[in-house]
Amino acid sequence: MMRLAVAAAAAVLAGSGVQAQELSEDARAHARSLADVALESDLAYRLTESLTTEIGPRLAGTPQEARARDWAVEMFTELGFENVRVEYFPMDLWTRGHSIFEEVAITHPYPQELYATSLGGAAATPEGGLEAEIVFFDSFDDLLEFDGAEDALEGKLVFVNDRMTATRTGEGYGWANRKRTQGWVQAENRGAAGLLIRSVGTSSHRFAHTGMMSFPAQRLPDIPALAVSAPDADQIERIHASGETMRVALRTYAGWRGEVASGNVIAEITGAGAPEEIVIIGAHLDSWDTGTGALDDGAGVGIVTAAARLIMEAGVRPRRTIRVVLFGAEEVGLVGARAYASARQEDGTLDQHIIGSESDFGARKVWRLSSGVGEHAVGFFDAMQEEMEFLGIERGGNSSGGGPDMIPLAAMGVPMARLDQDGTDYFEFHHTPNDTFDKIVPEELAQNVAAWAMFTWFLADTDVDFRARPETEAEDAAEGEPAR
Amino acid sequence: MMRLAVAAAAAVLAGSGVQAQELSEDARAHARSLADVALESDLAYRLTESLTTEIGPRLAGTPQEARARDWAVEMFTELGFENVRVEYFPMDLWTRGHSIFEEVAITHPYPQELYATSLGGAAATPEGGLEAEIVFFDSFDDLLEFDGAEDALEGKLVFVNDRMTATRTGEGYGWANRKRTQGWVQAENRGAAGLLIRSVGTSSHRFAHTGMMSFPAQRLPDIPALAVSAPDADQIERIHASGETMRVALRTYAGWRGEVASGNVIAEITGAGAPEEIVIIGAHLDSWDTGTGALDDGAGVGIVTAAARLIMEAGVRPRRTIRVVLFGAEEVGLVGARAYASARQEDGTLDQHIIGSESDFGARKVWRLSSGVGEHAVGFFDAMQEEMEFLGIERGGNSSGGGPDMIPLAAMGVPMARLDQDGTDYFEFHHTPNDTFDKIVPEELAQNVAAWAMFTWFLADTDVDFRARPETEAEDAAEGEPAR
Repeated sequence: MMRLAVAAAAAVLAGSGVQAQELSEDARAHARSLADVALESDLAYRLTESLTTEIGPRLAGTPQEARARDWAVEMFTELGFENVRVEYFPMDLWTRGHSIFEEVAITHPYPQELYATSLGGAAATPEGGLEAEIVFFDSFDDLLEFDGAEDALEGKLVFVNDRMTATRTGEGYGWANRKRTQGWVQAENRGAAGLLIRSVGTSSHRFAHTGMMSFPAQRLPDIPALAVSAPDADQIERIHASGETMRVALRTYAGWRGEVASGNVIAEITGAGAPEEIVIIGAHLDSWDTGTGALDDGAGVGIVTAAARLIMEAGVRPRRTIRVVLFGAEEVGLVGARAYASARQEDGTLDQHIIGSESDFGARKVWRLSSGVGEHAVGFFDAMQEEMEFLGIERGGNSSGGGPDMIPLAAMGVPMARLDQDGTDYFEFHHTPNDTFDKIVPEELAQNVAAWAMFTWFLADTDVDFRARPETEAEDAAEGEPAR
Repeated sequence: MMRLAVAAAAAVLAGSGVQAQELSEDARAHARSLADVALESDLAYRLTESLTTEIGPRLAGTPQEARARDWAVEMFTELGFENVRVEYFPMDLWTRGHSIFEEVAITHPYPQELYATSLGGAAATPEGGLEAEIVFFDSFDDLLEFDGAEDALEGKLVFVNDRMTATRTGEGYGWANRKRTQGWVQAENRGAAGLLIRSVGTSSHRFAHTGMMSFPAQRLPDIPALAVSAPDADQIERIHASGETMRVALRTYAGWRGEVASGNVIAEITGAGAPEEIVIIGAHLDSWDTGTGALDDGAGVGIVTAAARLIMEAGVRPRRTIRVVLFGAEEVGLVGARAYASARQEDGTLDQHIIGSESDFGARKVWRLSSGVGEHAVGFFDAMQEEMEFLGIERGGNSSGGGPDMIPLAAMGVPMARLDQDGTDYFEFHHTPNDTFDKIVPEELAQNVAAWAMFTWFLADTDVDFRARPETEAEDAAEGEPAR
């Protein structure tokens, strides 16, 4: 459906005098030579290696994240970027408090330790820990629809068991994530002592998957909330199936630690023709604390930085300014991205943001170019995709949001695009201790850089405006097609 | 070479009047029907599930291992085995002491926590922990050959980096294991404060591989000794390569806790014709403490028990007695196996052990039948293999030791045989937290049971003596072929 809609739109545009093929011979030749260099370059790989080794885990708001900012400033400066700076913003710090290893065990009927991890934002157990009976829910929907006695969950540990399936696009993630983001509210509202969930993600390995919870109306949890690894969730499921009453003990130290500073690190290649026009490409600098954030999002840092650097090295300035933003505090709720967008509203430069995109979905190959632009500009992306086809890249639809850290800008009307990576095995590693540098394949990372170098060049060296044109879009909408 | 030698031996035997084909029509038909039932049975799978769920980890000498013995006695009794009993033996208990999670972190130059685990037998750190500089050795051989200053390792943490490669037979394990078993002596003799090694095993996941160390002349270590996961070893290797001095802090609680009891659980199917003749098939009941011992060796427990039970169920008693032994305390130095063999010397029944075999190499399919028998009996195994070929089983050589818990019996002259399992990915999971029930494929486990049912039936329902015949073997030896 989406493909058909795009093709139709392109035909309309061609007919209405807009060039479907808006890429000059020069732009195409230059982009291709950038890609050729990128495919032979190990710069992204080395940057990711450096970040994940020299900083390692870099939880938002911690000294490790601050060290990552220092690393980024030094790196950008050494690589010759312009206007290198940090924009600081305040955030509320949450930490695990003790160690990445948390103490969780079945105490009855079959005593054994479990591999578990607190969810971001969770409270600690009472000092000395707690022990309670498990109430088993096969799915988050079952918990939502629970109509047991009012005190049925009082003082109990709610366990939610939904499983996620692997897809190329990661589309099952949002659904599977509901138990993680919203589960605590359901549990706490019914008086539960805590929440345990089967890890989100697709891994069968014994790693627990962390991640931030959601906080409606700024309410924070008073109960502990943890994910247990899939094999441990299997144990709980089997014991539940046996009909035995099950008790679990936990002792955790997680909690909110007050306001601290985080920051976005910004660097630029100033445009030669229209320096006030900004193509923003990003990744995030923070990571979860149990892994070293290689796939999420060390790879993204390496990819967008290397792509910009290769454009710089090629010696031709693009027409527009390329702004690389390494966001802070993404994992804990897009805090850096929101701060960035607010600051642009305040300094009046929001409208100068021509288009944005983020790399934040691992390190596998890019397989699709998606856009989120005005219908008149869809043909420009079709033409871009043709140039990138030799990299194995298909054309996606025109409803892309650009990536997590682009959400606040997109909501303010900045056009977006995305180079979609193959996410089939992303959730094997994502938010677990297993997100480490060895999972990155150098050749796949280089393919990303090639795609990003071409993409960034095409977007920065044109005068096409990607913003939706209200009159045209209204017509499209009337025909039942989504504007974005 | 081995195949040629076997073929030659078989030809000689055929010429010397021994039947190469010693399996009766009845035996072959019965074995085949056992296999057919086994391929449809989930008994081994259910037994392994029960052991790994209801007991979970079962470190030798702990209450968990005692619970596993109770489980086994009850299980054997319920399944209708005869002469179900426990033979207790004393052992020295070693435990991690605190939790399966151990506190290890790089403190300089790039502070971050590491995923590590104490090696069996290691000492604790001094109270409050220790912090020391890493001295990096790329291989155990480099450590052995180290000719630095006499005090070069004094107070340091020795790190040994050898990597193991995956093979079907697991043959790289012994070599890779030297750093684990012997590393501490080298480190301690040179005054090191502790030993760290890259995990033995082939996994790239963030699991540390534990396992027992060796203790020459009953000497026990005074220093902590730990394995770090492969991704963490990569970090150490990269930091070393950068030329930075590296410091690591650890706090561990491991140690020896004094003498406790362990035990072997024994159950039988009494032979109809020659009940005093024993075919011993085994597995081990204990496991390491960080996983639930599904592959090592819950699967083995399930396989040999189910094979014997299916023979019982078929309603025809074999000529010889089938004795199933679930050994205790295998992981900590074959303590149960040694106790069993000593007890048989003492009670005078050693010579009644006609042949032995153990299942202790995971849960992948059996691909080879190996023997360790007198040359006159090689033809019997050739004939067995022909019957088992439909299961995808090849004929191996005649130098099999029967499996770890068979070593003491083999050393006392008991003939051995083995159904070799595909070990290509065994060391992805072995001795790590990741050795859990979900790693077992039901169909592959059933193939094992089919092979074991046939194998056990053939060995138990014959009058062939598998012991080497000194005169014949001496001749073979004179021709330069190994007797076993």
